[in-house]
Amino acid sequence: MKKTLLIISLLLLIVSCQQKVTKSIVVTNSSELIDAAKNAQAGDNIVIKDGVYKDVEIVFEGEGTEENPIVLKAENAGKVFIEGVSSLQIGGSYLEVNGLFFRNGYSPFKNVIGFRITDENVANYSKVTNCVILDYNSLERDQDNLWVQLYGTHNELSNNYIAGKTNGGPTVRVDLKGNQSIRNYHQIINNHFGPRPRKGGARGETIQLGSSFTSMSPSNTTIANNLFEECNGEVEIISSKTNFNIIKNNVFYKSEGSVVTRHGNYVTIDGNYFIGDGVNKQFGGIRIVNTGHWIINNYFYKIIGENFRSPLAIMNGIPKSPLNRYNQVTDVVVAYNTYVDSKSPWQFGVGTNIAQAAVLPKSEIRSARALRTVVANNIIYNSVGDETPIIEHDKADGVKFKNNIINNQGVGFDNSERIQATEFELTKLSEHIYMPKLTSDFDVYNGFGFETIKHDIFGNSRETSNSIGAAVQGLMKDPAILDKTKYGASWYSNVVEAATPNVLAVTNAKGELEAAIASAKPGDVIALSSGTYKVSASLVINKSITIQSKDDEKAEIVFEGADNTPLFNLNPYGILTINNIVLSGNGKQQAFANLNKNMSNHFGLTVSGCDINNFDYVLKAYKQTFAEEVTFKNSTITNCENGIELSEETNDRGDYNTEYLTVDNCQFTNVKQNVIDYYRGGYDESTIGGNLLVSNSTFTECGSKEENGMLLNHRGIVNVNITKNVFKNNKVEFVSILWGAKNNIESNNTLINSGKIKTEENLVMKLMY
Amino acid sequence: MKKTLLIISLLLLIVSCQQKVTKSIVVTNSSELIDAAKNAQAGDNIVIKDGVYKDVEIVFEGEGTEENPIVLKAENAGKVFIEGVSSLQIGGSYLEVNGLFFRNGYSPFKNVIGFRITDENVANYSKVTNCVILDYNSLERDQDNLWVQLYGTHNELSNNYIAGKTNGGPTVRVDLKGNQSIRNYHQIINNHFGPRPRKGGARGETIQLGSSFTSMSPSNTTIANNLFEECNGEVEIISSKTNFNIIKNNVFYKSEGSVVTRHGNYVTIDGNYFIGDGVNKQFGGIRIVNTGHWIINNYFYKIIGENFRSPLAIMNGIPKSPLNRYNQVTDVVVAYNTYVDSKSPWQFGVGTNIAQAAVLPKSEIRSARALRTVVANNIIYNSVGDETPIIEHDKADGVKFKNNIINNQGVGFDNSERIQATEFELTKLSEHIYMPKLTSDFDVYNGFGFETIKHDIFGNSRETSNSIGAAVQGLMKDPAILDKTKYGASWYSNVVEAATPNVLAVTNAKGELEAAIASAKPGDVIALSSGTYKVSASLVINKSITIQSKDDEKAEIVFEGADNTPLFNLNPYGILTINNIVLSGNGKQQAFANLNKNMSNHFGLTVSGCDINNFDYVLKAYKQTFAEEVTFKNSTITNCENGIELSEETNDRGDYNTEYLTVDNCQFTNVKQNVIDYYRGGYDESTIGGNLLVSNSTFTECGSKEENGMLLNHRGIVNVNITKNVFKNNKVEFVSILWGAKNNIESNNTLINSGKIKTEENLVMKLMY
Repeated sequence: MKKTLLIISLLLLIVSCQQKVTKSIVVTNSSELIDAAKNAQAGDNIVIKDGVYKDVEIVFEGEGTEENPIVLKAENAGKVFIEGVSSLQIGGSYLEVNGLFFRNGYSPFKNVIGFRITDENVANYSKVTNCVILDYNSLERDQDNLWVQLYGTHNELSNNYIAGKTNGGPTVRVDLKGNQSIRNYHQIINNHFGPRPRKGGARGETIQLGSSFTSMSPSNTTIANNLFEECNGEVEIISSKTNFNIIKNNVFYKSEGSVVTRHGNYVTIDGNYFIGDGVNKQFGGIRIVNTGHWIINNYFYKIIGENFRSPLAIMNGIPKSPLNRYNQVTDVVVAYNTYVDSKSPWQFGVGTNIAQAAVLPKSEIRSARALRTVVANNIIYNSVGDETPIIEHDKADGVKFKNNIINNQGVGFDNSERIQATEFELTKLSEHIYMPKLTSDFDVYNGFGFETIKHDIFGNSRETSNSIGAAVQGLMKDPAILDKTKYGASWYSNVVEAATPNVLAVTNAKGELEAAIASAKPGDVIALSSGTYKVSASLVINKSITIQSKDDEKAEIVFEGADNTPLFNLNPYGILTINNIVLSGNGKQQAFANLNKNMSNHFGLTVSGCDINNFDYVLKAYKQTFAEEVTFKNSTITNCENGIELSEETNDRGDYNTEYLTVDNCQFTNVKQNVIDYYRGGYDESTIGGNLLVSNSTFTECGSKEENGMLLNHRGIVNVNITKNVFKNNKVEFVSILWGAKNNIESNNTLINSGKIKTEENLVMKLMY
Repeated sequence: MKKTLLIISLLLLIVSCQQKVTKSIVVTNSSELIDAAKNAQAGDNIVIKDGVYKDVEIVFEGEGTEENPIVLKAENAGKVFIEGVSSLQIGGSYLEVNGLFFRNGYSPFKNVIGFRITDENVANYSKVTNCVILDYNSLERDQDNLWVQLYGTHNELSNNYIAGKTNGGPTVRVDLKGNQSIRNYHQIINNHFGPRPRKGGARGETIQLGSSFTSMSPSNTTIANNLFEECNGEVEIISSKTNFNIIKNNVFYKSEGSVVTRHGNYVTIDGNYFIGDGVNKQFGGIRIVNTGHWIINNYFYKIIGENFRSPLAIMNGIPKSPLNRYNQVTDVVVAYNTYVDSKSPWQFGVGTNIAQAAVLPKSEIRSARALRTVVANNIIYNSVGDETPIIEHDKADGVKFKNNIINNQGVGFDNSERIQATEFELTKLSEHIYMPKLTSDFDVYNGFGFETIKHDIFGNSRETSNSIGAAVQGLMKDPAILDKTKYGASWYSNVVEAATPNVLAVTNAKGELEAAIASAKPGDVIALSSGTYKVSASLVINKSITIQSKDDEKAEIVFEGADNTPLFNLNPYGILTINNIVLSGNGKQQAFANLNKNMSNHFGLTVSGCDINNFDYVLKAYKQTFAEEVTFKNSTITNCENGIELSEETNDRGDYNTEYLTVDNCQFTNVKQNVIDYYRGGYDESTIGGNLLVSNSTFTECGSKEENGMLLNHRGIVNVNITKNVFKNNKVEFVSILWGAKNNIESNNTLINSGKIKTEENLVMKLMY
C-alpha cells in the first residue's frame, strides 16, 4: 500500500513537472542576451528586444522538455539583427531560436549557427526557425565555413531564408561524427534557399549531408518542401553523403547544379520539381552514385544539362572504390518520373574515364557500370523530338527498363526497345508544370518493393488508382511551387520590384565623377560628357553600376594615380559595366583590379566599346577573388604590358577566378605578356567550370615577352571556345593549347606568323583527392 | 447497401481463404519428391518416406501463407537421406523444410541449400529446420561452394547440425545482391555448427553475412543461440560484412577463429560466450573493423589468442580504404564485457603495417587508428597477473576508457589509468563460467546510447539494478552453454562414445597386411610382427588407423610397386600414424602420397620411430590436398631424392597444404632436393597460418641437387621455428630464409659447411586483393 502511494505520488510529481511553466525574460543588449542564453531553464522564453546586436557569440544552452521548451526569439521577428563577428551555438534539448536576422558580418568560427557547444554537448529536439542569414560571408573566399551545422538528433531547420554565400563550404551541413549525431531524423523543411552565387570551384554546395568519412552512418535526414532558387554555388546543390536520407517535394528553380547521392546509400528522392529554362545547360537534375537509391515521382521541366548535369545521371563507379571516391551504382530504382522538354534526360555511365587511363592512377578509373538498376513507369514528353533520350557514356547493360513511354513527336530515337513511343498530350497546371494526360492505359510495372511507393508527386494515393509518371492521372492541380509565401521566414521576401535606374550626368569638373560613383545607387548609370577626365586616385566600385559616355564621342579617363594601383578598384559587390570610354594609363598601373584581400563578395566586369591603352595590366584579379562574369567586347587593348589576368587560383583544388570570361570583337595590339591568362588546377571531375570564349578578335604583335610562350593561356579551364579570330605576328610558340578530353574547341581562326594551336588529349593534373 | 454486402462477402472470402487447408502428399521416390516439391500449393504437407534419395536436385517452390505454409518433411526426422550429387533450392513464401539428412555426396551447384530458384524468385518467410548437413564436400578443395545460401527476406535456419566442411567457401552465407534480399531479418538460430576442420587458407568461414560488394546494405540478420564447436576453418568464424546484424547469445567453444566485423557497420555483438582452454592460441574473440559496432555483455574464458585473435582486437584501418580492404574503426562501443584468464584481452592498432610500407602499396597501409571509441564498464579477472592487459600495436589515443576494473592479483601493468586495479572474487557457475562477484559498488558509466543496453548476458534487466561486467550482480545461474540438446537437430547428436581400439595383429604372409588395412575400423591399430613385408601395390589409407611394429624389432616394409606410386596412398579421411617401421623403396617411388584429384576430405600423417630409405619422395602432397597435421619424429630419412613436399598450393591466394608440419629429432641424410618444401603464397594479413617446427634434428649431406639452393624452403609460411638442429655438409646457399615481419624465428642451430640462415624483414608477395 505504501508502495502504491509512493508510485502515485511520483506519477503526480512527473505529471506536474510536465506542466507548462513558461517564464519570460527580456534582454536588451548583447551581454544580457549572452547571459540569458547561457543560463536557460526549461520553460524560459527569452525575448530579444528589437535592435542591432553586434559581435555577439551566443551560446544557447539548456535542457528544455517537449512540454516546456526554451525559446530564444526576437521581440518582433526580423527586427533583431545579429551583425559583426557573431555566432550562435546551441546545445541541450528542446531549444528554439526564432526570428533573428544575421547580416553585415561573419562568424568567427567554423559555422554561423552550430547545433552543438562541445563535441559531446550537442542539441537534440531543437530548432532554428523563421530566421534569415544573408551574405554573412567570411572575409576571404578560402576561409571555408558553414552557415548552419547540424549535430545531435531530431533538430529542425525550418522556414528560414538563407542566401548569398560566396565563401567556401556548404551553406548547411549535417554532421554525423559520433553516435550522438547518427540516426538524427533532422528536418530541413520549408526553407527558402535564395541565390547562392557561383563559387568557382568545389565546396559550394547548398546542403551537404555528412561526409565521405561518415558515409557508412545512418542519417535519416529529411529535406522537404524547400525552395532552392538560383543555388549556383557548384555542381552539387544537395550532396547526400550518408544513408537513408529523404529528399522530398522540394523545388529546384533555375539552380545550376544537381541533387547528388555522392556518398552513402538508400536515399529517397521523391516528388521534387526541377525547373529549367531550356537555354541554360548548367541547371541539373539528379546524379546518382552508390547503392539502393529510389528516384521516384520527380518532375523535370526544360532541364537540358548534359552529362554530370543531365536530368538523370547514373555514374560509373571505380571498382572497389576508395572511401572518398565513386562507388558503383547498384540496386537503384528510377520510377514514376516525368520529363518535359528535357534533352537526353537519361544518361548512363556518366563520368566514365577509361580513355584517361594513361594519366590517371587505376584507383581513379570509373569503369564499373550500374548493376541491378530498374528504370520503370517513367514518362518523357518532348515538344521537339529528341534523337537521343538515352545516352550511354558507358553501356547500360545492368539496367532493366520497364514500362516507360515517350511522346517524341514521331521522331525516331536510339534504344527504342527501352521506351515505348506513343502519343499523348500535356495538361498545363501552371507556368512550369505540364503533366501528361494519358488517354489510353499504360501498364504499371510492379518491381520489387514498388508497393512502398504509396503516393505521387502531389501526395495522391497510388494505392487506389495508379498510373505511370510523376502524377496519377485525373487528380492534378497546380502545386503553386513558386508561391514564395510557402517558404522561408514569414517576415522576409527576396522579391525585389524592378527599379528604373537613375542616370547621373557628370562632366570632367574635378571630383564630379568620384562624387557620382560614391553617391550612385546599385543599378545607376553614370553618363560622362565628352572630354578628358583626369583621375588621380583609384575609383572604388562597391556596387553594381554602369559608367558610359553620354555622347557618341567617347569620353577619356586618364589615370594619373600611383604606379601599381588600379584605375577602377573592384571591391566586394562591385559589378562594373563600362561602355564607350577611352582609358589611358602611364604604362605602370592597372586599368581594373580587385582587392588583394578581404574580397568577401564577388566582383564583376563588362567592358564594351572601350579603348584601353598604356597599362601594366588591363585586369588583375587576385587570389580568393571571383567574378561570375568578365566580358570584353568591341574594345581595343593597346600597348599594355599584360592583358587579362585571372590566374591566381594556383592551389590546384579546382578553384578559379571567374566562371565566364568572354572576349568578343576586340583588338589586342602590343600586349607583351599574359594576353589572356586564366587558370584552373587540380584533377577534379566535379568542378566542371571555367568558360572561355574568344571570338571575332584580332591579336597583333602580342606575347613577345611572355615566358611560357603562350598567347592565350587557359590551362585547366574546362570549356574553351576559340573561334573566328585573327592572330598576326605574335612571337609565341603556341596561340593556345587545348585540352582534348574536355570541352576545348577552336574553329575558323587565322594564324599568320603566330605559332600554333595544339590539342593535348590529356593534361597531367595534380590529384585533388 | 449493395456495396456493404459486397464488402462483407469479400471479407468472408478472405477469412475463409486464411483458414488452414492442409493437404498431405506422400512421396516415396526421387521423381515423386521432385514433382511434389515443384508444384506445391499453400497448405501442402509433403511427407518424404524414410529412405535414401540419391542424385536429386530438389526445387521447392510455392506460395504458402502464414496460415497455410507449405511443408516438405521427412516421414521420420533424420530417416530421409539426401545423398550423391544432390541439392535443394527454395523459392516462394512460407516454405518449410524439416528433418532431412544431407550426407555422402556433394552439390552440383554453388550451394547445397539455396533460398532462391532464380535471381528474382527468392524465398521469403521460409525455413530450413531440424536438418543435418554432414561432410557434404565438393570433390576438390578449390571447388568453392556454400552449404546454405540465404536470399530473400525473413527466412530462418534453425535447429540444424552442420559440420565437416573442408572445401572452400563459407558454410553459410547470407546474400544481399538485389533489393529483394536487403533488410532480410533472417534468423540463424539454435543451430549446432559442429567441427569445421582447418582449411589451410582463406574462404573457410562458418558464417558470412554479405560481401564487401554489399557492405553498404542493411542486412538486419540475427545469429543467435547457436553453438559453434571447433569451427576452425579459418581466422573468421563469423564474418559480418553488412549492416545492423545482431550476433547474440552464441557459444564459441574451442573454435580457432574470431567473430569479425569485416565490412559493414553498426553490428551488435551481445551476450556471447567465447570459451578457450588457456593453451591453444588459435581460439579468438571479437575483431573489429569499421564503424558503430556495439560489443556488449560478452564473456571470454581462457582466450589467449594474440593480435588478430585477441579477445578484443580493434584494427587499424587504411585511410580512405578501398571498398574491399579495411575501413577505420569509429564510433564503436565496448561495454559490460567480462574477461576471465584471457591474456592481453584488449589490443588496439591490430594489423598496423606501417613498417612494411616499402613492400606494400599505399592503399594497403593500415595507419588509421580507432576514433571516437568507448571502452567502459568492463571487468577483467586474471588468476595470474598480466603485465599487459592492453596492447597498443598502434596508439589507442582515439579511445575513451571509462569505469573498467581488473583483478590482476596485485601485479602491476601498463596503462593503469585505463583500468582500475581492485580486488574481487569469482563465482563458479559451471565448468567454464566464472562470473565476478563484486563486494563493493563500482560506478556504471552512462555513455551516449547506453540506456539502450537493457539486459545482461543472461537476459536480466539492467534497468532495475545495474552493474559493470557481463552479468548484473546477484542474479546469476548456470547458463548450461554446452547442453547440446539445446542446439541443432533434435534427432542428431555428435557426441561419440570413446571406443577402445581393436589391435589387429598381422604377419608378413602375403596379403595379410592389405586385408587388415581394408577391414580395420577407424581408430584401429595394426600390429606387424617382425619381418619383411613385401608390398607390390599402394596401400590405400582412407580412415584413421595406426600401423606399428608389434615387437621391439622394427618390421620392414619393402615396396615393390611401380615407379611414381606411393607405398601409402593417403585418401580422403586417411589419417595414418605409423610407428617403428622400416620403409624401403627402389628410389623411384613415394613413401607417402595423397590423391592427385578428388581429395574431398583431409588426410593426416604421423611418422614416429621409422627409418625411411630409398624413395623419390618421402611425402608428396598434391594441389588441393590438406592435412591438419603432418609430423615426423624420432625417424631417419636416408638416401631419398626428395624429402617432405607440401608446396603445391601455388595459386598465391593464401592457401597451403598443411596447418602444422612438425619435424622433431629426425636424421636426414643424403636427401638431394626439397628436403622440406612448404609453401604459402599471397599477401594476406588474415590467413595467418602455416606452422613449421624443425627441432633437434640433423641434416647431413642434403640438398645437393636443390635448384633454389635452400635446404628448408618455407616461403610464405607465417609461423616458423627452427631450433636446436645440426646442419652438416649440406651444399646449399641457405639453410633457411626467415620472414622477419612474421613469426619466423631460429635458435641454437649448429651450421657446419652448410650455407646460412638469413632473415628477410619483408618478403615481396603477390597482392591477393
